[in-house]
Order: sequence, then C-alpha cells, then structure tokens
Amino acid sequence: MPSAAGRGQGQERRPENGDSSAAEDYAKERYGVSSMIQSQEKPDRVLVRIKDLTAEKADEEVWVRGRIHTSRAKGKQCFLVLRQQQFNIQALVAVGQHASKQMVKFAANITKESIVDIEGVVRKAHQKIGGCTQQDVELHVQRIYVISSAEPRLPLQLDDAVRPEVEGEEDGRATVNQDTRLDNRIIDLRTSTSQAIFCLQSGICQLFRETLIRKGFVEIQTPKIISAASEGGANVFTVSYFKTSAYLAQSPQLYKQMCICADFEKVFCVGPVFRAEDSNTHRHLTEFVGLDIEMAFNYHYHEVVDEIADTLVQIFKGLQERFQTEIQTVSKQFPCEPFKFLEPTLRLEYREGVAMLREAGVEMGDEEDLRYLAGHNCVSLGKYDTDFYILDKYPLAVRPFYTMPDPANPKTSNSYDMFMRGEEILSGAQRIHDPQLLTERAKHHGIDLEKIKAYIDSFRFGAPPHAGGGIGLERVTMLYLGLHNVRQTSMFPRDPKRLTP
Amino acid sequence: MPSAAGRGQGQERRPENGDSSAAEDYAKERYGVSSMIQSQEKPDRVLVRIKDLTAEKADEEVWVRGRIHTSRAKGKQCFLVLRQQQFNIQALVAVGQHASKQMVKFAANITKESIVDIEGVVRKAHQKIGGCTQQDVELHVQRIYVISSAEPRLPLQLDDAVRPEVEGEEDGRATVNQDTRLDNRIIDLRTSTSQAIFCLQSGICQLFRETLIRKGFVEIQTPKIISAASEGGANVFTVSYFKTSAYLAQSPQLYKQMCICADFEKVFCVGPVFRAEDSNTHRHLTEFVGLDIEMAFNYHYHEVVDEIADTLVQIFKGLQERFQTEIQTVSKQFPCEPFKFLEPTLRLEYREGVAMLREAGVEMGDEEDLRYLAGHNCVSLGKYDTDFYILDKYPLAVRPFYTMPDPANPKTSNSYDMFMRGEEILSGAQRIHDPQLLTERAKHHGIDLEKIKAYIDSFRFGAPPHAGGGIGLERVTMLYLGLHNVRQTSMFPRDPKRLTP
Repeated sequence: MPSAAGRGQGQERRPENGDSSAAEDYAKERYGVSSMIQSQEKPDRVLVRIKDLTAEKADEEVWVRGRIHTSRAKGKQCFLVLRQQQFNIQALVAVGQHASKQMVKFAANITKESIVDIEGVVRKAHQKIGGCTQQDVELHVQRIYVISSAEPRLPLQLDDAVRPEVEGEEDGRATVNQDTRLDNRIIDLRTSTSQAIFCLQSGICQLFRETLIRKGFVEIQTPKIISAASEGGANVFTVSYFKTSAYLAQSPQLYKQMCICADFEKVFCVGPVFRAEDSNTHRHLTEFVGLDIEMAFNYHYHEVVDEIADTLVQIFKGLQERFQTEIQTVSKQFPCEPFKFLEPTLRLEYREGVAMLREAGVEMGDEEDLRYLAGHNCVSLGKYDTDFYILDKYPLAVRPFYTMPDPANPKTSNSYDMFMRGEEILSGAQRIHDPQLLTERAKHHGIDLEKIKAYIDSFRFGAPPHAGGGIGLERVTMLYLGLHNVRQTSMFPRDPKRLTP
Repeated sequence: MPSAAGRGQGQERRPENGDSSAAEDYAKERYGVSSMIQSQEKPDRVLVRIKDLTAEKADEEVWVRGRIHTSRAKGKQCFLVLRQQQFNIQALVAVGQHASKQMVKFAANITKESIVDIEGVVRKAHQKIGGCTQQDVELHVQRIYVISSAEPRLPLQLDDAVRPEVEGEEDGRATVNQDTRLDNRIIDLRTSTSQAIFCLQSGICQLFRETLIRKGFVEIQTPKIISAASEGGANVFTVSYFKTSAYLAQSPQLYKQMCICADFEKVFCVGPVFRAEDSNTHRHLTEFVGLDIEMAFNYHYHEVVDEIADTLVQIFKGLQERFQTEIQTVSKQFPCEPFKFLEPTLRLEYREGVAMLREAGVEMGDEEDLRYLAGHNCVSLGKYDTDFYILDKYPLAVRPFYTMPDPANPKTSNSYDMFMRGEEILSGAQRIHDPQLLTERAKHHGIDLEKIKAYIDSFRFGAPPHAGGGIGLERVTMLYLGLHNVRQTSMFPRDPKRLTP
C-alpha cells in the first residue's frame, strides 16, 4: 500500500486499489487512503474509544480510530479485528447497502498494524466474540479510511509476542525471542502484555511519589554529570566535558546527602543511574531508573527503614487496587502467584538469614554477601508467607565506606537490604554524618581522601543523623509481576551488549 | 568545638568547656555535646516542630531539634535563634533554677549552624519577636545538647545570603555573590529563599504529573545513553561505553515518538537533558531537567497545544494555591509581581509577534528566530496583561527537520513556543509521522540518512499524527518566581565552567 505522503493537503478521501470498473463502485466515497493528517482542519467528529464500545451503545453510529490487528476475508465479507492499546473489537465489512465488493476487497488488503478511521454501527453480537476484549458487540463498517499504512512485512507478529512460552513449546506455535523483541521494540511494546507492564510501571512511580509527598518528603533533582566518581571510581562511565572529562553518576548518593545537610530533611528523587558493570545477567542494566530516598532521623535508623518499607507496602497496595486489569493481562502470558506481603513488614537480621540458609543446606561464610545468593533465601523464608522482607545489620565488610558501623558489634553495620520474591530491590544504610569517622572509614577502605574531599566537607557545618536507600524501578516491576528478566520492564534497555534502539 | 566522633556509644551527655570549678556546677547534667547518634537506642522522646510552636503551646515543656541560627550572650543570659527549614524561634538560656552560669557560657559558645536538642518551656512573648517566624512565643531552655557541631568559620553567612541585593547595595551590608553561593551550595540551600525555591520546584513537578495523569497520560522512562546523536550531532556529549562510544541524549524526542508509535498515545517524562553548548548565559545549563510531553491527536495539533497550555495553567494555579508561603518568602529577597495568565491561554501567530516587535521599533527579518529576542516581546505584549502566551506557526526554516510543514504556507510550520515573562520555556511542534516526507525533509537539511535510519523506520508500521513539546523545569521555576538566573533554580547547576559540587 503506497504511502500517502506528499499528496494533496485536503482531508478528501480517495479510493485506490479499486477495480478498473471503479465507475460502477457505488461506495467509492466510503473508503480509501486519507491524505496525511497535517492539521488541515478541525472537524467536529468525535472518535469513540474501543473500550467504551459495549452493549449499551448498540445501534449507535460511531467513528473509531484503531489499528488493524488481524484481517480475514471470507466471500463477500471481511472480518477485521480493530485494536486500541489493550482493547479490541471485531469489525465487519460486508457487501450491502454501505459497502461494495471493491470496498470489501480494499478493506481486506489493508496491511496489519495500519491505522484506520472507521464509521460503523455498533451491533450486539449473536454469540460472545472470542479473542476480543469487547465480546458482546461488533462494528458494522460503513466507511473505512487508512490514516497511516504499515509496511506489509512486520518484523514480528503481535500474536506470537503475547503467546505464553510454555504453550509455545508444547504445541510448536511460534514465540518471539528477546533480541527480536528488543530490536523491534516499537512493535513489541504494542502487545497487551507490554502495554500493561509499562502502565503499571508508570503507576509504581506515581505511588512512590504520592506516598512520599504525603509523608512530607520533597522531590529533588540531582546532577548526572559529576566531576568525581561518587563511589570509589570503579564501574563508572566517562564523559568528555568540553576541555576536560567527567563521569556519569552511579547513584544520587552524595547529592541526596548534601540535601540532608542542607536541611531538606526528607528527600526523594527518581532518575537514571549509570553503572559501567560488564554484567550480563537477568537483573543488571547499565542504565536503570533509581527511586531514591534519604531522610534525617531523630534517634534510630529504623525510623527510616520503617518509612521506606511502608512506602513499598503502599505501592504494593496501590497496584492491587488500581492496576488489577494490568496484573491480569500480564499473568495471561506470564502466570504467577499474586504478590504477598505482611504489615508490618518482616524484618530479620542478617545472621538469621544466614542461619536459615545453612539450615536449608547452603554453604556460606558469615560475611559473605547474601544478595548474591538470591533465590535460595526465597525458598528458605517460605515459612513466613511473604514475598517482601527486610534483612538488617549486614556485615560491615561488605558495605560501602560511608556506612555507619553498628555500635553494638564491630563486625556489623546499620545497613539493610529489601527483597521481593527473594531478589534484592533496595540497598540502604545509616550514613556516617561525622567527618572524622567518615575520614577514618575511607582510609580503612583505601580510598583516596583527596577525591572525596568535597563529600567529607559536606558534613563539617552540622549534619543530622540520616539514612536512606535506592530502589531499582525495573526490578520492582519485574518482581511484582513475577517476570524473569529486567529487560522486560525497561522500555529501551541498556546493557554491555545493547545500546539500541 | 571538638567533634563527638569516636566517643562512647551511649546516649549520655557530658559537659565540656565548663569552668575548672565544674564540681560546683548544679546544671552539669543539663548540657553538653552528645555522643554521635549511631542508633544506640530508641527513646520515646517526641521532637516538636518549630513551626508548631505557637501561643497555643504556651507553658508546655517540649523537646526541639534545630540549628543555631544566631546566638547573642548578654550578662547572665544567652539568646539563641533556633532554625528549622523556613521557621525559627527565639530560645533563652538564663542563669536560674535550670541553668548555671557554666551552662549559659556553654550555650553561648556553640557555633552557628550546629544542630542542638533543646528541652524547654514554651512561654508567651511580652512583645512580638522581630526577625523570627514564631513571633508570639519563645523557648525557655532547660537542657541543651549539641547533636552535630559546625566548624566555627562558615564560608558564607545565611543572613547575608538572604539579603535583597538592592538593599545591600544601598546600605553597604554584605550580600553573597553567585559563585560563593554555588561553591558552598549546602549552606546556601539552607536559606529560607533556597528552601522555598526548591519546595516550589518539587511542587511544579508534582503538579505537572498530577495534571497529566488526570488527563490519561502515561509516564515513561527514556534512556539517556544513546548510540546516535538524536538531533543531528552538534552540541552532544560523548560517553565511553565499554569498547565503543555513545552519546548523552539531548532530549527524549526520539523515544517519546517511539512510544507514540508503540500506541501509548499520551506520554510524559521528567528527566535530565544534556546539551554540550558552550553558552554562558543566564538561561543556559549543560544539564537541565526536561518536562516532556508527546501525544497522538485526532485531526489538528492544536488539540495538543491546548492540552500543554492547560497543563501549564494548572501548574500556575496549583502553585498559587499550595505554595503561597514559598512565593512570599522568595519575594522578600527578590521582589516581583505575581505571575499573571489568561484562560484560555493567549495564542498568537508568529507573524503577529514579529509585527508587534516591529511596531515597538525592533528590527528583525521575517524568518529570524524570535526566541533570541527575549525581553523585547515581553514589553510589546504588555497590552494583553498576561505573563504566559503561545507563539504559533514558526518559520519552517528555523525548526528541526522533523517539524511538520504548514499545509497552508510553505514558509511556516505546525510549530510553537510558549513564553513566561517574555522568555521561552517550551518548544514544540507537530512531528512528521510519514517516513517518506521525513526522509525528504532530512535530506533537505543535509542530514546523513544512515544515522537516522532507526528513527525514520519507527514510522513504517503505522504511526498516528502526533505533537509534543519539552519544558525546561529550571526556567519555569525561575520565571514564575521572577528570578534572573537559572542557576538559582538548579540545586547543583552544570554549565561549561561549573561541574561541582
């Protein structure tokens, strides 16, 4: 189907691909390829949403814009499935008063994924229409115009892309592998599963901020281009900056803390975080979205742990309440148990986690980082019947230099991780707010004091005790929905091997 | 005052700087430097907020944590001003039943900006206390402990930093220049003006998203590390990416449009935008926060223009309603007329703007970019009595290649800018959604087609007509408050000469 570009500027409709006997076509004004919409006019026409086409609208004449999801010609009829985001409806073009055989042929030839405007009458279906979200009605087409044509060969088929993997393996029907999906992301993102994943992800951000603003937090914006590597210098991307060079922030850590030193008391930020780690796993990205929190507390960092845990609980609850449709849609392709959590959140000490792992037969040292044993702890914590818990009091040795040591035990620290379905989604700690102790700890870690001078100096003019943490948005989305790869929950993922699209 | 770091771990209080006759000090348990708060315990003590200390609390005994804003000793008394964010209260330490002369001396010696815990009784003031936000009460101190000491020499004085510039020039009292402020940003951010600016900025983000979510938009996250320069290649920062190199996104343009092609229909994103422009002006940053919108429309891009303009109007209204205190606080240091706007928003065509400028005596060509004449148009538009307006139909020649040409006039385009107090804050357009026309326009602009192949290919599988725009957060904050430099509204600004802190 030729493109309409460069055509006349009017809104007129011209049939094409018609028979040579077009002169006899009594419906020739009722179909065709529209000229490109260039804002030539402002018609009064109302376009109805497909999701609103229900039995209540029976016998109404409506205009709808949607994509051709599938098309099947059968004698003098053509059945189209018209799609709009997660919703679709059957549309029938049949030879009769409104449609000529040329019009039916035209409709049957419209390529899949093309966008069309249809005028039709909503009719009650004689029986439920399987495979459509609007099962009780169909649309009897009176006019059909192509607004934007798709090329005839799609790089992947949407029906293949939403097929559950297991089913595909069993019956031999095609599924789409991850690289094909990501290489053709704009098509892959059109599936009902992708639409649902990213609507829900938008909801996570919204619930995160809503909850924190209600709790009196202030949103901050922190710079991503920084002059010194924030956490020691490893795994950092270098940027050329005019005549010098700079780095991409591995976290908003320093800036969040500076805002605390500047009396903002409770801050959060949502933004990209960059890690030049050559990790090719299901849970690592080189660029991801951090949901970061930092908060001054009065006497004990558990005041902060409780606020963060409650924030996550509010997110889980909000998703259940507002995004049930999306959760159901995703579970059709990726079946999974609903996400379970307790109130208040289960908080265990690290040593208890280790003890449980050992009971379950896992061998590990006292100071080994439990995060790298993801999956194991999920199983061994089964008795608590929760998919969300906190491990508190990590070994001092496995945490960054700015972590506050535990006053009760020189081997542990005031730090914590939070887990969803057995995988770490947040890492946090009380930070050292005293410049003298911070200097000692940095020296102990062999860090060049000159490089972190500005950081240490931030605490010289009065600093409140504070704690915080950083949450990975893509991980939360993945684990809440029971998905298995963080690339499914990043619209345009970046990893050591992927920089496009 | 020595740091408390490395001391004992208990919550005990030890006097210091006392007389040698400490044995006679009947108040010695009532003051001192606390050991570092390392989460040793979870006391029941409630800390009251300074803003809640009003006449209603008269004669109550309360605990408060705050910073020493100022301190003035006078015989057997010491007057402190205790500050908490935008609020402050006078606190009196006087020799008597609770305080010894050693305790008064200790209090008088606490360095400014140190954080202290005070137990005191709220007393009605005999007369209004000028210079404090809590004018009706003062706090009679019974105990005072230093939680975190500030070094004695502050790099800038907070009182100097909030002094209106004009007043400073007139009476010779000190003000603080911009570089000193930015070099010592954590102190500068503690001023009431800074606190207000950034609370209001947090509100702008919140109102932007609230409004768009209500309008059915979805929040998206777009990658900042990209494989090809998004808008032609100039002014882009290069990043080393493992064994290859990449770029920092100059806008989320391509990704917003891909989301439209992927059927998200209405999207927004809030995130950093990077421009390697060597511009050292009051309105340019190399990294700023973009509030970006993209939306599929039915027939005319004005559908989108109306949604964007209404979103800005909702922000302006929301700020008026929710941030009046902050607006007042900033205007004390930077006096300015309240921000004015019309409903619906004034929309003029570019040629009308040019005509008005010429009337006002400005010489300019028909296709010269009006954005660079900021200030002039502000004056000439005075008759409309609005600080917010839209200029529509820019010359095609001054806009990017992907801008939809105006079907009615080959010299103009379906593009627009929005202005606040005469300065551009948003640039937007209908985008070309047809791959053939897009290719033609790119060729016309001399752009290497190979480099934008992925971009053009995005439109080959059916693309709805769409338009959008990008708003600069720091500019909106600056212009709403009538400030004069975008560095005042970026917490940690980045420009060609500044990469720190």
